[in-house]
Amino acid sequence: MPTLSGRAAAMEPFRVMQVLARAQALEAAGRDVIHLEVGEPDFPTPEAIVAAAVDATASGMIRYTAAHGTRALREAIAGDYLRLYGLRIDPERVIVTSGASAAILLALAAGTDAGDTVLLPDPGYACNRQFVTALGGRPVPVPVPAESGFQPTAAQIAAAWRPETRAVMLASPANPTGTLLRSGELIAIAEVVRERNGVLIMDEIYGRLIFDQAPETALSKVPDAVVVNSFSKYYAMTGWRLGWMVVPEGWVEPLRRLAQNLFVAPPTVAQVAALAAFEPGTEALLQERVQELRARRDFLLQALPGLGLELRARPEGAFYLYADSRAHGTGSEALCDRILDEAGVALTPGTDFSPGSGRDHIRIAYTQPRARLEEAVARLRPVLVGHG
Amino acid sequence: MPTLSGRAAAMEPFRVMQVLARAQALEAAGRDVIHLEVGEPDFPTPEAIVAAAVDATASGMIRYTAAHGTRALREAIAGDYLRLYGLRIDPERVIVTSGASAAILLALAAGTDAGDTVLLPDPGYACNRQFVTALGGRPVPVPVPAESGFQPTAAQIAAAWRPETRAVMLASPANPTGTLLRSGELIAIAEVVRERNGVLIMDEIYGRLIFDQAPETALSKVPDAVVVNSFSKYYAMTGWRLGWMVVPEGWVEPLRRLAQNLFVAPPTVAQVAALAAFEPGTEALLQERVQELRARRDFLLQALPGLGLELRARPEGAFYLYADSRAHGTGSEALCDRILDEAGVALTPGTDFSPGSGRDHIRIAYTQPRARLEEAVARLRPVLVGHG
Repeated sequence: MPTLSGRAAAMEPFRVMQVLARAQALEAAGRDVIHLEVGEPDFPTPEAIVAAAVDATASGMIRYTAAHGTRALREAIAGDYLRLYGLRIDPERVIVTSGASAAILLALAAGTDAGDTVLLPDPGYACNRQFVTALGGRPVPVPVPAESGFQPTAAQIAAAWRPETRAVMLASPANPTGTLLRSGELIAIAEVVRERNGVLIMDEIYGRLIFDQAPETALSKVPDAVVVNSFSKYYAMTGWRLGWMVVPEGWVEPLRRLAQNLFVAPPTVAQVAALAAFEPGTEALLQERVQELRARRDFLLQALPGLGLELRARPEGAFYLYADSRAHGTGSEALCDRILDEAGVALTPGTDFSPGSGRDHIRIAYTQPRARLEEAVARLRPVLVGHG
Repeated sequence: MPTLSGRAAAMEPFRVMQVLARAQALEAAGRDVIHLEVGEPDFPTPEAIVAAAVDATASGMIRYTAAHGTRALREAIAGDYLRLYGLRIDPERVIVTSGASAAILLALAAGTDAGDTVLLPDPGYACNRQFVTALGGRPVPVPVPAESGFQPTAAQIAAAWRPETRAVMLASPANPTGTLLRSGELIAIAEVVRERNGVLIMDEIYGRLIFDQAPETALSKVPDAVVVNSFSKYYAMTGWRLGWMVVPEGWVEPLRRLAQNLFVAPPTVAQVAALAAFEPGTEALLQERVQELRARRDFLLQALPGLGLELRARPEGAFYLYADSRAHGTGSEALCDRILDEAGVALTPGTDFSPGSGRDHIRIAYTQPRARLEEAVARLRPVLVGHG
């Protein structure tokens, strides 16, 4: 067999996939498993979007679009920035992508070269460090403790920056913690990055899933940020593979060339269907879902401490909780295995998000209806607290 | 604005996009333009596939699949290798991807590291060298003259190989030439690559679009090749963004991890719909289209020499002709501009496929009905031969 590259050999598996495989084996054996491990909304794609997709498919909209997406979708996305944030974004600065994954790859390819380092909060979305590695760069973790809300400070970024550092990737709300980056800190970090001629990449794919304040975009405060977004989470369009990015004006042409070469184009029908995402009826439905997610979070915030699972920073968005599991010893991977076996509840060990502190944490994705979350808590109690 | 990476700054634009933009400007001004520039079939996606997509969308199949694709589609693809080539491929070795683009990126990421070089036939598909560059590698062109059918020989590959060379990418039929790599030469090249512990990446996205012999796959002769394929061309599913690769057994797990990290998953509905691609009714329709493409090729083979456009190697597949345009002097970019302006026929300058010999060639994509090709030839005659 041909030799694998170093980057492929270094690519780590997701522990969550092992959890999922074990969960599926249990289900095949007749067990009921409550899935709180996968980062995918349990809501269906809104009907208006599905109907638009059916129409577009049936009418033969099957050709390549421009590499950066249709003008109509880029205008609709730009229009949403105006409606939500009062921000005028030139639709030319919007690049539609095959999911946020393609946007992250493009942002890193455009901002960094092989050998560069990229600062990444730890804990953070596991794939980010793999993207950096795949592109020949070196990910540098910036430990972000619960005390600072699992988000970095400008002082930390400044201290971690080296001559070979070219970019920092942030997320608000963040995965796995659901915490927000305060705009004061964001502005200060952006200043640190700008002084060093670096690139600030901002992941806002959970940006509309926030519960305790109005949504924000980094673009309001940091116009030269490279912002990555997606239809997957808020719009419940995971399997459609559609995302976008907003880039500084001078990046538009190079980004289009990169997108053309590396992806040809994003999926066509998904682009047509996504236009229905911005209709008022769809928006109302999605806002109801945000309230439902908020209620789920509030339920878990109240229930988890009684199970010896501590939330040391308030999760304000996304659909994740990152709970300190040290009360249960043993390390999070063994704990998740035990919980799955004994309670039939699938959780993700924190090691997917942090090689270090992840041993002491588990991620709970509340992507199940409240009744199932209540059932999960009831099943966890005897396993974690020891009385039924 | 944040500084662009070297790899982004080095990314070359496609000349074909400039041709397309000029063509669209002419059309906006009321001119009729015959589009022979874009590498996209003019046929619609077969109805059975469209119907399956409508059903899948309407029934809410919108979740992520496994990163390497659904079991059903991987089995269907493997089944097609058995039916077509008598070849048993373990469905586990099939990785479904977001178009061939994702497959090429994965193949190069798995086979090469930053700093490695990759041998690429020149002329060849322009994006390949950009993929290599994007991943921090260095593309090394291997000039393939018409005399060897625009395909490399084993002796050339051996001569071009350096200690830092890790892979060679070939295509049969090739873009832009439509020529085939003979299986004797393929076997000899594979031996050269194997002796040097390298990776042979084989692009077979036009593999079913061949006219003068039965289709072949490199896997019949080179079981350890990394083969890239797509639903875009033969199945007329460009905008659906669906492709696949077949990899050596030892590459399966690392490839799945890479795919998971870099792409999450290929589009879901497209995967369900693509199952209909393998139905006998669909196959019969697609074979009729191959005969139609063959007739178009035969028409152009006969007509082009009279226009001073010489085919120096017989095109046996895909839907491209790579014609020597030296009789018209001036370089292919200026020639394509002139032909577009004076004849309203859009062609791609060879410089998209070869920085060197491309100045002397143009690519003709016969992705238009025969009547339009006849019209194109009639319009070209006064411009290229000088009498009406």
